[in-house]
Amino acid sequence: MIKFQEFKEVCQKSIEMIEEAGLLLTPEDKEKITAADFGLSNLKKEGIQILTMFQTNRIAGKILVLLPYQTEPEHWHPTVGDDPGKEEVIRAISGDLYFYIPGEDTMTEGFIVEGKADCYTMRNEVVMKPGDQLELPAGTKHWFQAGKRGAVMYSFSTTVTDLNDQFTDPNINRDTIIEKAPRGAY
Amino acid sequence: MIKFQEFKEVCQKSIEMIEEAGLLLTPEDKEKITAADFGLSNLKKEGIQILTMFQTNRIAGKILVLLPYQTEPEHWHPTVGDDPGKEEVIRAISGDLYFYIPGEDTMTEGFIVEGKADCYTMRNEVVMKPGDQLELPAGTKHWFQAGKRGAVMYSFSTTVTDLNDQFTDPNINRDTIIEKAPRGAY
Repeated sequence: MIKFQEFKEVCQKSIEMIEEAGLLLTPEDKEKITAADFGLSNLKKEGIQILTMFQTNRIAGKILVLLPYQTEPEHWHPTVGDDPGKEEVIRAISGDLYFYIPGEDTMTEGFIVEGKADCYTMRNEVVMKPGDQLELPAGTKHWFQAGKRGAVMYSFSTTVTDLNDQFTDPNINRDTIIEKAPRGAY
Repeated sequence: MIKFQEFKEVCQKSIEMIEEAGLLLTPEDKEKITAADFGLSNLKKEGIQILTMFQTNRIAGKILVLLPYQTEPEHWHPTVGDDPGKEEVIRAISGDLYFYIPGEDTMTEGFIVEGKADCYTMRNEVVMKPGDQLELPAGTKHWFQAGKRGAVMYSFSTTVTDLNDQFTDPNINRDTIIEKAPRGAY
């Protein structure tokens, strides 16, 4: 559950970060931004803000925003039926961004969310500077985190519904519930 | 055939236009920019500059640049074997950009390349302001043109080799030949 006031606050902050990074957003883009807490009710620690620029039956383009020290939980995009699984390319735009993927433990910049070592098992660190790109073939287990300045990035991918994502944390529920707006909020 | 000097000039100008639009390019990105004249040897009138950010077996992301009044010739992405054909999403970044797609003739902003009316048959005009997006399903015949300020745009797509593109102009050859650098140019 995300409280309505917190939802508004993180979305507004994320829009500011995107615009500060030099990207132009239309009024329609700004209305499309949303936040996901993965059912953990701890959005600013484990969560992400997502602005879907486009999504067809075949491809999708999104802007992802992490607030300072916010962490996207470890997950992967599995094979579903005839689809080999979502393939994703990340392009860093601004801020401090650390990706964790399969490989030897080289973690130095980021941190494991307190008490959740079992939920963040990939420890091969990729420090992504603005303009850096990372290809994540289908099935690649990954999580990512922002440093002190937060991070803005593009995510380009094939289209498979996010509801098929698999998470390491057994407490995660991909359906984010946003508390209803209080009466008179609009 | 593109002359070496002209190739260098249009690529440099295109990089400047991308950076003026607020996009960050890495040194590696800048080295990847290229120009295509479609074998017509008239690059500044019929041609385009292309910076491929990424290309996997499944998806591709490119930055496309048109110089002022430069025109990308009419073409479409056909079905090839089991592939339904390249699907493309355009997102305008800066400048004056006009797309022409199937539909009634609404052309007012752009122009037909002199003497080539038979090669530009789509006349339904889409004026794209920065941030506007256009989805081009596989098989959609289209061409596009910049106004006086030129244009910078993203092209996101499924991956099918450009060599499969079909053009209305029978004189087009997708293989662009760039004249060799003169001795001592590097």
